[in-house]
Amino acid sequence: MDLQEYLNNVAQDTNLMIRRYFGDTTDTLNKASAHLLLAGGKRLRPAILLLAADAVRKGSSYDLMHAALAVELTHTFTLIHDDIMDRDTERRGVPTVHSFWDEPTAILAGDVLYARAFEFLSRAPAPDSAKMRAVALLAHTCAQICEGQHMDMSFEKRTDVTEGEYLEMVQKKTGTLFAASAAIGAILAGGKSTQVDAVHQFGLLCGIAFQIQDDLIDLISRSERTGKNRASDIRKEKQTLIAIRAREKGIDLTSYRKVHSDKEVDAVVRELRSAGIITEVQETAQQMVERGRKTLTILPESEERKLLLSLGQYFIVRRY
Amino acid sequence: MDLQEYLNNVAQDTNLMIRRYFGDTTDTLNKASAHLLLAGGKRLRPAILLLAADAVRKGSSYDLMHAALAVELTHTFTLIHDDIMDRDTERRGVPTVHSFWDEPTAILAGDVLYARAFEFLSRAPAPDSAKMRAVALLAHTCAQICEGQHMDMSFEKRTDVTEGEYLEMVQKKTGTLFAASAAIGAILAGGKSTQVDAVHQFGLLCGIAFQIQDDLIDLISRSERTGKNRASDIRKEKQTLIAIRAREKGIDLTSYRKVHSDKEVDAVVRELRSAGIITEVQETAQQMVERGRKTLTILPESEERKLLLSLGQYFIVRRY
Repeated sequence: MDLQEYLNNVAQDTNLMIRRYFGDTTDTLNKASAHLLLAGGKRLRPAILLLAADAVRKGSSYDLMHAALAVELTHTFTLIHDDIMDRDTERRGVPTVHSFWDEPTAILAGDVLYARAFEFLSRAPAPDSAKMRAVALLAHTCAQICEGQHMDMSFEKRTDVTEGEYLEMVQKKTGTLFAASAAIGAILAGGKSTQVDAVHQFGLLCGIAFQIQDDLIDLISRSERTGKNRASDIRKEKQTLIAIRAREKGIDLTSYRKVHSDKEVDAVVRELRSAGIITEVQETAQQMVERGRKTLTILPESEERKLLLSLGQYFIVRRY
Repeated sequence: MDLQEYLNNVAQDTNLMIRRYFGDTTDTLNKASAHLLLAGGKRLRPAILLLAADAVRKGSSYDLMHAALAVELTHTFTLIHDDIMDRDTERRGVPTVHSFWDEPTAILAGDVLYARAFEFLSRAPAPDSAKMRAVALLAHTCAQICEGQHMDMSFEKRTDVTEGEYLEMVQKKTGTLFAASAAIGAILAGGKSTQVDAVHQFGLLCGIAFQIQDDLIDLISRSERTGKNRASDIRKEKQTLIAIRAREKGIDLTSYRKVHSDKEVDAVVRELRSAGIITEVQETAQQMVERGRKTLTILPESEERKLLLSLGQYFIVRRY
């Protein structure tokens, strides 16, 4: 099976569960909780969880769809709350929860998914000792995601963010949940601690690369493709790796904070390209993935290990 | 030991842990998370958890301070988020988190405590099977609290809320966390399922009574005593049991939504008193507590069972 086929299958299975548990509701709060879940998504966190489980013990992912859903719910709760803080109006091609309903409903909708994540994780048919480790890891990860989002927001008021600070923020905001997803898969499949550590590290490094690629996509890909407002990072003066590297080369992206049209953004991209910045940022992401892929050598050879390796690469070649 | 002495001890122990884990931080997000925790509180949810544990198996509460802290963190996370939604500016005599910092910080501060609740619960020195039951119950409870808060807000737009709807809302918003706290104590102490169910039901009924008393306190007690803005329920046109019963007797509390001074509020209280509404609402709370106390007859006789019975009564005689 190639990666795209595997991802399609996982997305289909995840969507089926989402429709089953969240699709049929008339209550406003549950509708608001389900809104972004039902609007699609690549379901990459469920995929990395299931692949890590199978890479550790073939066939174990069969039982882990509840756990896979748990990490997708966690991801979605953070999106709903982040959209409020970032005042984003569109995501996955639909209005964000707070803009369709209101802020109080969006806060609660996120809080409900947060709870459901732990509920679904607790239903995984795995030994209680493994599930408790998974619960503790997910909880710790949620706290780190909040720290990452807080760092991200605090960066908006600064113009001197360093590459090290950016990488710490991205590790917390995005890396940790990919890391936890992979580790939870390995833990629930009964993996040894060296295996759990390896897939955790893989998820962390590839997750950082994923976010760097996300920043590139925000700049380069058109809204029709991504379902988000293009170049929102520039308009919000976000301190991305692109902005930091540009600053080092004398290009001040904050001076472009008024860009709106594709034509205007294309001009900025051309300037960054000719300064070599786009290529350099892509190379940094590639190096992260390479480091992540190396950690997987301790896993037995298998189709799932191969798919995990491809997944890491996919994180940085995707265009949306 | 009398109840007040017991509660003082629990509050002291809880405060000690809070200072240990949350007291010493320079980071803005962690400060915001710790803000309401450090501002005091009666620590009634830790108390009911520890008492239920000891009532089931004497001496078992000794190990459960992490679990006790977990339910206090859960409570505090809901306060932080509710204050944003309700636009409250003061609580426990200090500014609310979103008014001292800002809304994004308050959303994240709540989210951090939410995570820490599950982290602390996962650290309880109890069998994994018991802890998994506790985690699942806490998660389910968090979702119900959100539903209760959403119902509460949706009531503000209505003038025809029934007593049944009010009681369902209060059960979810306030009853379930007292119920879960007691049940988690019993579960982690190794209680039989009949015992767990009994203390859960006790917590639920007394928790509903607690909220009814809270509504009375909002109306009757002065701000200096409560640390909250007096009569905020009337100004927000909240559909409390008082408002519902008043409406049935031809008193429209929404017509008093402009009251501010103690003199004005005192006049409203006098009108409600002479219509017999205050007494009737107090009787309803008393009946709830009586029903709750009856469920405890299946527990062995002990000092802790007596203290639990007193705690139920305390919920409806307290003045702040």
